[in-house]
Amino acid sequence: MTVNIVGSGNVATHLAKALSEKGFEIKGVLSRAKEHAQSLACEVRAVAVDSVADMPQADLTLVAVPDDAICGVAKAIHSAGVTGVVAHTSGATSVDALRPIAHRGVLYPCMTFSKNDRIDLRRCPFLVEAADADSLDALKSVACAIGSGATECDSDGRARLHLAAVLASNFTNHMLLMAQRAMTQAGLPFDLLRPLVEQTIAKAFTMSPFDAQTGPARRNDAKTMERHRELIGGDMRLRGLYDALTASIIKTYGNG
Amino acid sequence: MTVNIVGSGNVATHLAKALSEKGFEIKGVLSRAKEHAQSLACEVRAVAVDSVADMPQADLTLVAVPDDAICGVAKAIHSAGVTGVVAHTSGATSVDALRPIAHRGVLYPCMTFSKNDRIDLRRCPFLVEAADADSLDALKSVACAIGSGATECDSDGRARLHLAAVLASNFTNHMLLMAQRAMTQAGLPFDLLRPLVEQTIAKAFTMSPFDAQTGPARRNDAKTMERHRELIGGDMRLRGLYDALTASIIKTYGNG
Repeated sequence: MTVNIVGSGNVATHLAKALSEKGFEIKGVLSRAKEHAQSLACEVRAVAVDSVADMPQADLTLVAVPDDAICGVAKAIHSAGVTGVVAHTSGATSVDALRPIAHRGVLYPCMTFSKNDRIDLRRCPFLVEAADADSLDALKSVACAIGSGATECDSDGRARLHLAAVLASNFTNHMLLMAQRAMTQAGLPFDLLRPLVEQTIAKAFTMSPFDAQTGPARRNDAKTMERHRELIGGDMRLRGLYDALTASIIKTYGNG
Repeated sequence: MTVNIVGSGNVATHLAKALSEKGFEIKGVLSRAKEHAQSLACEVRAVAVDSVADMPQADLTLVAVPDDAICGVAKAIHSAGVTGVVAHTSGATSVDALRPIAHRGVLYPCMTFSKNDRIDLRRCPFLVEAADADSLDALKSVACAIGSGATECDSDGRARLHLAAVLASNFTNHMLLMAQRAMTQAGLPFDLLRPLVEQTIAKAFTMSPFDAQTGPARRNDAKTMERHRELIGGDMRLRGLYDALTASIIKTYGNG
């Protein structure tokens, strides 16, 4: 199967490299950021182009651009008469953003990508959706080749999964930033918390987060929470987060 | 080294088992919950007692009881003329809660414990503190024998670490509960998120949480956040958490 990549950001880069490593032939990399496109194209032995009209023919065109840009790219691809399956990679965007392309679909990696991070996509599940059965089969086979597998999911389900991913990944990371700051204030290395955090995640996925909850809010231990608020002092942002999370945990266990 | 355990909850149980496995002789298990004490004492081949006066002599007495109970236990231990080092295992409690015991200290495992979870304490760092050098040495050697090592830390530093642990573990787990609920609404298995969450943690500890942050709040992507708020709908608790975390991330990156 031959593939075109539209975009040259984190998702485009990680997917293009994984596809290339798995033996897919990347034909073209299209990006307005010509330098990024050139550098990615070079890595995956493809042609860099900055206009849809110059894009080579391919069985699959993956649109990995910011959500807002998907509609515009789709219209340009349709006008240029591009054939094959066209799929975007966004969690929060409906497959219909690719209309009027007939063979439209979605290949969404449920993962967080940063520049220069190493990531093993073989552990990454993909959510797939398509407007027709052949496109769906093509996307499933790509997902199985580079990821841990394909889960069929419509655009509404994927939007909810995207919300869940924000809660589980983006918000979790932000709590770790707050924790890192508290460790700095304690004069202790952030790494001391790593085994605790890894055990927390392991417990949540083996026991369920409801059963795995521990801590002062779970026990409604007012004295310890008061001591924490003293340590937080005038840091109103952290205080706001502490109070919101604490109140939600107390409410969850109905011991307020 | 011989050890007495006061308490029979999660921390007492995990520590007693780890000590016993590492060849420490557990002499007595003291708990008001006689049945729990009996069952734990049986597992670690110790005597179960329900009064400080009946506690055998030991080199180290570990007080793993609720924070509120530490002072009372310390007074009883002192009155009974117990010898050896006495250490509590609380993150949020000062070593001085054990006064007037002379050889007092703290052996705090930076970990989350639940009933029936399997845990490898060899990856668990311990925070240690003591009123005298010999007690400190004893606690360090215990920490190194059953855990990944000992980090010296005074009661103020440990209180800040305890706050950091609540942010990094308890609050993270609660976000996973919210994510699990969103996955249920999407009709998708919670386990789909596990590789994403594990990668999030790995990135935070290798790159730093500040650099690892991704997602709509990081980009200040108003359209996606609006779509999330529509999905959250009338769930005011989740809405409160979503708004608080989102505002904090936007503020952190100064692109609001």
